[in-house]
Amino acid sequence: MTGWRHPYPADYGDALELALVEDIGTGDLTSACLPADLQVRGMIEAQAAGIACGVGIAAECLSAVADVEIKVTDGDMIESGDQVLNFEGAAVGCLSHERVALNFLMHLSGVATLTRQFVDAVQGTRARIVDTRKTIPGMRSLQKYAVRCGGGHNHRMGLYDAVMIKDNHIEACGSISRAVEKVRKSIPHTAKIEVETDRLSQVGEAINAGADIVLLDNMPHKDMAEAVQKYADKPVIFEASGGINLLTVRAVAETGVHLISVGALTHSSPALPLHLELI
Amino acid sequence: MTGWRHPYPADYGDALELALVEDIGTGDLTSACLPADLQVRGMIEAQAAGIACGVGIAAECLSAVADVEIKVTDGDMIESGDQVLNFEGAAVGCLSHERVALNFLMHLSGVATLTRQFVDAVQGTRARIVDTRKTIPGMRSLQKYAVRCGGGHNHRMGLYDAVMIKDNHIEACGSISRAVEKVRKSIPHTAKIEVETDRLSQVGEAINAGADIVLLDNMPHKDMAEAVQKYADKPVIFEASGGINLLTVRAVAETGVHLISVGALTHSSPALPLHLELI
Amino acid sequence: MTGWRHPYPADYGDALELALVEDIGTGDLTSACLPADLQVRGMIEAQAAGIACGVGIAAECLSAVADVEIKVTDGDMIESGDQVLNFEGAAVGCLSHERVALNFLMHLSGVATLTRQFVDAVQGTRARIVDTRKTIPGMRSLQKYAVRCGGGHNHRMGLYDAVMIKDNHIEACGSISRAVEKVRKSIPHTAKIEVETDRLSQVGEAINAGADIVLLDNMPHKDMAEAVQKYADKPVIFEASGGINLLTVRAVAETGVHLISVGALTHSSPALPLHLELI
Amino acid sequence: MTGWRHPYPADYGDALELALVEDIGTGDLTSACLPADLQVRGMIEAQAAGIACGVGIAAECLSAVADVEIKVTDGDMIESGDQVLNFEGAAVGCLSHERVALNFLMHLSGVATLTRQFVDAVQGTRARIVDTRKTIPGMRSLQKYAVRCGGGHNHRMGLYDAVMIKDNHIEACGSISRAVEKVRKSIPHTAKIEVETDRLSQVGEAINAGADIVLLDNMPHKDMAEAVQKYADKPVIFEASGGINLLTVRAVAETGVHLISVGALTHSSPALPLHLELI
Amino acid sequence: MTGWRHPYPADYGDALELALVEDIGTGDLTSACLPADLQVRGMIEAQAAGIACGVGIAAECLSAVADVEIKVTDGDMIESGDQVLNFEGAAVGCLSHERVALNFLMHLSGVATLTRQFVDAVQGTRARIVDTRKTIPGMRSLQKYAVRCGGGHNHRMGLYDAVMIKDNHIEACGSISRAVEKVRKSIPHTAKIEVETDRLSQVGEAINAGADIVLLDNMPHKDMAEAVQKYADKPVIFEASGGINLLTVRAVAETGVHLISVGALTHSSPALPLHLELI
Amino acid sequence: MTGWRHPYPADYGDALELALVEDIGTGDLTSACLPADLQVRGMIEAQAAGIACGVGIAAECLSAVADVEIKVTDGDMIESGDQVLNFEGAAVGCLSHERVALNFLMHLSGVATLTRQFVDAVQGTRARIVDTRKTIPGMRSLQKYAVRCGGGHNHRMGLYDAVMIKDNHIEACGSISRAVEKVRKSIPHTAKIEVETDRLSQVGEAINAGADIVLLDNMPHKDMAEAVQKYADKPVIFEASGGINLLTVRAVAETGVHLISVGALTHSSPALPLHLELI
Repeated sequence: MTGWRHPYPADYGDALELALVEDIGTGDLTSACLPADLQVRGMIEAQAAGIACGVGIAAECLSAVADVEIKVTDGDMIESGDQVLNFEGAAVGCLSHERVALNFLMHLSGVATLTRQFVDAVQGTRARIVDTRKTIPGMRSLQKYAVRCGGGHNHRMGLYDAVMIKDNHIEACGSISRAVEKVRKSIPHTAKIEVETDRLSQVGEAINAGADIVLLDNMPHKDMAEAVQKYADKPVIFEASGGINLLTVRAVAETGVHLISVGALTHSSPALPLHLELI
Repeated sequence: MTGWRHPYPADYGDALELALVEDIGTGDLTSACLPADLQVRGMIEAQAAGIACGVGIAAECLSAVADVEIKVTDGDMIESGDQVLNFEGAAVGCLSHERVALNFLMHLSGVATLTRQFVDAVQGTRARIVDTRKTIPGMRSLQKYAVRCGGGHNHRMGLYDAVMIKDNHIEACGSISRAVEKVRKSIPHTAKIEVETDRLSQVGEAINAGADIVLLDNMPHKDMAEAVQKYADKPVIFEASGGINLLTVRAVAETGVHLISVGALTHSSPALPLHLELI
Repeated sequence: MTGWRHPYPADYGDALELALVEDIGTGDLTSACLPADLQVRGMIEAQAAGIACGVGIAAECLSAVADVEIKVTDGDMIESGDQVLNFEGAAVGCLSHERVALNFLMHLSGVATLTRQFVDAVQGTRARIVDTRKTIPGMRSLQKYAVRCGGGHNHRMGLYDAVMIKDNHIEACGSISRAVEKVRKSIPHTAKIEVETDRLSQVGEAINAGADIVLLDNMPHKDMAEAVQKYADKPVIFEASGGINLLTVRAVAETGVHLISVGALTHSSPALPLHLELI
Repeated sequence: MTGWRHPYPADYGDALELALVEDIGTGDLTSACLPADLQVRGMIEAQAAGIACGVGIAAECLSAVADVEIKVTDGDMIESGDQVLNFEGAAVGCLSHERVALNFLMHLSGVATLTRQFVDAVQGTRARIVDTRKTIPGMRSLQKYAVRCGGGHNHRMGLYDAVMIKDNHIEACGSISRAVEKVRKSIPHTAKIEVETDRLSQVGEAINAGADIVLLDNMPHKDMAEAVQKYADKPVIFEASGGINLLTVRAVAETGVHLISVGALTHSSPALPLHLELI
Repeated sequence: MTGWRHPYPADYGDALELALVEDIGTGDLTSACLPADLQVRGMIEAQAAGIACGVGIAAECLSAVADVEIKVTDGDMIESGDQVLNFEGAAVGCLSHERVALNFLMHLSGVATLTRQFVDAVQGTRARIVDTRKTIPGMRSLQKYAVRCGGGHNHRMGLYDAVMIKDNHIEACGSISRAVEKVRKSIPHTAKIEVETDRLSQVGEAINAGADIVLLDNMPHKDMAEAVQKYADKPVIFEASGGINLLTVRAVAETGVHLISVGALTHSSPALPLHLELI
Repeated sequence: MTGWRHPYPADYGDALELALVEDIGTGDLTSACLPADLQVRGMIEAQAAGIACGVGIAAECLSAVADVEIKVTDGDMIESGDQVLNFEGAAVGCLSHERVALNFLMHLSGVATLTRQFVDAVQGTRARIVDTRKTIPGMRSLQKYAVRCGGGHNHRMGLYDAVMIKDNHIEACGSISRAVEKVRKSIPHTAKIEVETDRLSQVGEAINAGADIVLLDNMPHKDMAEAVQKYADKPVIFEASGGINLLTVRAVAETGVHLISVGALTHSSPALPLHLELI
């Protein structure tokens, strides 16, 4: 478990504040029925099995109004009925912060849980499950953290930290080799270059042009396997992509690719059900 | 179609800027391979059938770097292959803004599409499909707009614009009637009061206390129908909730409730696939 | 006293920071004459009788530079000479934070005090004194909180949490009933509908259309009383408005209306004098 | 009329956006009754005589949704019934931006109007009417602009642009002369030093210490006149302060002081009534 | 040492957060190699002699992740090898916050050190070394603080806190006296007026017009001395400017001017080398 | 010239606004002397030879108040007396925006000019000149853009887009190979790994561990050359660093390293003199 896995507060402080403003706005009307001095104890509990993610954020959200005790760590497998955290504080504050804490937890645990299903499906192969830039606006950094918590790895964070030459770029430049050459002249030496290919004939061209990573997009599994074998002695990394789901991911992994990228991890993961109970 | 259905720019301006910063950051490295003066034409195209939502945001995103022509309106039914918008502009800008435009469109169209499936499922009954506060942090206002585009209606926007007295509030106050009475004394006269009930015996108490809306949470359909019939002459609104899905929603609607709230609309909707093509 | 009455820090954190930046800017030049290590004790004291409001904000402002002890609670009646809070800290910090603390206190206590005068004037009637959207830009949430502290109630917070159909809307739609009907179709079930009327003939139309609240704007008191009596058996709420002041408010209340809205509470309240003294 | 009198957009852009968010929030519910394509024409009209201020802000607010024509300039005297601006645009937008435009206009025109009353009251004397730091949080820059529009002048903008040595500072330093001397050593040469005095004996000490401005706080008018006369040949500026109102300001001005500062201009000015009419 | 010398947190809080976001972004990738629970001790050490500045900011930066002990105060002379601060905390946090802490320290200490060299060069004359508005965008307040720490003084902070009439203004108004007269009518009484002159004949005109400060821009030293002598009995302040460097500053000071402004202090100061060492 | 070279508005919009607020604050006092309707024409002119950078930002700054015509492009060599841009607009606005436009231009052109001197010094070798993370807080993205305009290349943008294993990391992990191995397991496949070495014996270890880049820090030139030669057949990139200046950079380049990183580019570059003239 590494430091990078855990985002700094700067990563979610703004998101947490924004979410509280969204929900509480000018005040919790319903709290008018609560005795101002009523103290309560409660917990957040899983209602299904999955991977916990967002426990720290949920705890920070509640700690503004309560004492919080964390029971599981981001990345832990949890079962239905497991306590994620418990707390003690004023009823007024706890009930007004409940939903925001749960919304983070449910969404991020959903991402982590789906990621874990993909990771488990390729167990024993060398394939890493990686995310994409198909994220929900404003949530990229947190969603990518959830992918890591689910046992997946991150692809580039955005347009700024790696090169991905796609069909449109290739067409604009005339060829893969010209595109790679032109990019390499100006980008930082620290940035890797990935080239998207959609047929076998492009793979060799990309490797010869010096691509660090080759994306095999929507290729037949047979072609993927052939590409991997043919260039096994090259220091190139192969990534597979294109509508890969839990039913097909194992077969893709068995082609020998190093990476399988799955947009659904961040754009279509269902929430993991959790709820808050007073005790 | 009303003004309220369309959010003002203030509603998504910040979200759009945040999403662009997330993705472009310090710059699009790959654009280094593109001729600075290369102009391109392209379109965003649906890859599956559904309800379009976010077209205006996607258009605003691209219009910073291109001329954009909108082909469908938020709320329109689209088929796979339909053009959502087309554009013409510098390749450098269009390719760096593509992903953010698509991320908004895919997520919001996903929410609208799932909403529409629920709405269609209760066709012919009097039940409205409504959303909840179980939204993705930072996206509430846009997700609730997407629900409206899908033919659903909104529940309260947050804790600030309506009262919802839940089990924890009731327990803290001693009874439903005490909670309702206490709240009514301090809230604006413009705010309605909803009371959550989980058994028939509470329904009458809530109505007698003056609740404007009664939530029937996780009740047997038979009990829901009984509550609706028994108080048919009262001006109260009945809402059903509790893990209702596309298989069960019709039966719930047929109990006669006015509203069915579905958390999945905003916390678990899969993205609608769309992509950007140069032409 | 309820939780809702007290805004969360999110409500005034930004306002406090903005006010400090406005006043201190690049630094307090005068503090150059103070010994850096000089500790002082002082207090904030009322210079006139009224209702305290903003004590928590003033305390938070000073607590950045001093230890603060709060002596009265928002909503308390205070007399000239009463201590509102006292503090102990470095002279440099206390003197640079004095004005901002006082500006919040003086303005909000002014709003609360004026509100209380209206509330007292209608004592014994069933009329609530409520505010309007005629607030000072940037201060709405805090001003509405001050109204609550003064014993008043809030009207809707903004355009987003209730419907108010005015003459311009009615004209655009053709009639009150068409306007009400059209709005009801799209708004959340949690939102109430208020209709502004300026003559008796409109009142019945509004009620028949299903208005939850009817605003009697600038009507003769006689007509107000007639409206209230005529529809006494309807579940409708009557609000009076239109240049109502301390001299006329009692007569308006005696018409039997439920609510009297007064723009002056938030747009024309004089400040309550308070000052800071070292001791 | 100078450039400084008119604030740059940067001065009110944030305030305008904040006010729109406060009022419109997640959307104008009532607009649901309006035909989306309904165009309207209207105007903002004074309902009482006064000094216009905030016309540019109101125009900018409305120009987001309409074509606006400005009819009077900030600082102009207006009569009841005068048009301040007129506009033409979509009903949906105009009605949702109405209140914010009016709130700026009513408050700022109120400040300008009260200022003008003080200015008129001292007509023919050499006294300038100046504001104080007793402003409404978040509105300082705009309120001080309104004071200028009303014919008044500004005192220092905050703690950062001039020195004001008050009783607490004097006590901390031991004497006026020590305080002045100490400050002068470190502040910019561009900053003037003002010393607050509350009795005649301090005036000479302040002048000898090199104060650029002497504040005569809550002194008898006789003493003010004596101070002014005694040091008539010195390059010092005299400012009077302390609960000065429209009844007393003339007598204060006739003592010969150069400046009279009035906190009420910005903390207690009633709004000037204006409204928006469709035509 | 005065309170004003030390900026309030508000002065650098945003700058610090911005700098951390710039550097850490979505997370410190390298920290993945560190044991999450590894505690380290370290120090920040000077690598050259100079004036320390930014110690408080650096300490605040590190204190988010470590316990920090400050060893020198802003304004202190330090030698190569001197400890500026030391700290103890988690390796993950300390190594990710190192660069930002150093970047503030190195830049601000560089400004303070260069300032001190100018101040030392004019030792024994009456000339103050002052800064200009030629600052690095976003750093003005901190750079001007560094100038104070180096023994210099500040000129005006911006366009808002003093008047500087330059050649373009004079030309637009017709003459120095008209420009001064016109400005004086509208600005606060607390603001001083400085007039830029570039030949002797203008100096008298500026003084007669009532300028508080006269800037002698790019004049021969002989002319500067003549101006100073000729108006020695006037309460005017003389400032010299125009490409003055460490070789020429003494001669300028010996002309008798009160102030010498040096743009290079803030636009061209080299960083003072400091580094962070674990121990 | 590539798209990446030119930052998007998002890159400097906030910096520009911040700089304007810093300088103009509550308004340009001196503008009070200018006729409000006075139109002026002017230009920004170089006062020394160098590389222009920031022309677009300066133009955007002025275009808020004037029509601007750009005469040179970022990256162009300019001579003393060359026009950078010219403009025509209201005197009030142009004179208040002058300084901010110049401050960006002078600083960024200074960075670009210094970079170009280093680039010229290694002409004919294969060494790239690259920047570091030793940037001025808040200016990193713009400074790194200036380095590109000067013909240099960027190193990693921050901690988030590449791995740099330094002595402290190595010590914490036990060895270079353990550190590299541990990092590789968790970081994105798109990120390269650089290892800092300070003696020859470490170089081989780093290469064997799979480092993509090896930093030769403060090594004798002889050792640098030996490292480069010894591993000439490896796909590793060699970077030299450590107090390299214009006198020593050529000798370093001749060792055959691929990259030379120079902190002074961004932490110690003197401003390039430019000024604004009315014509």
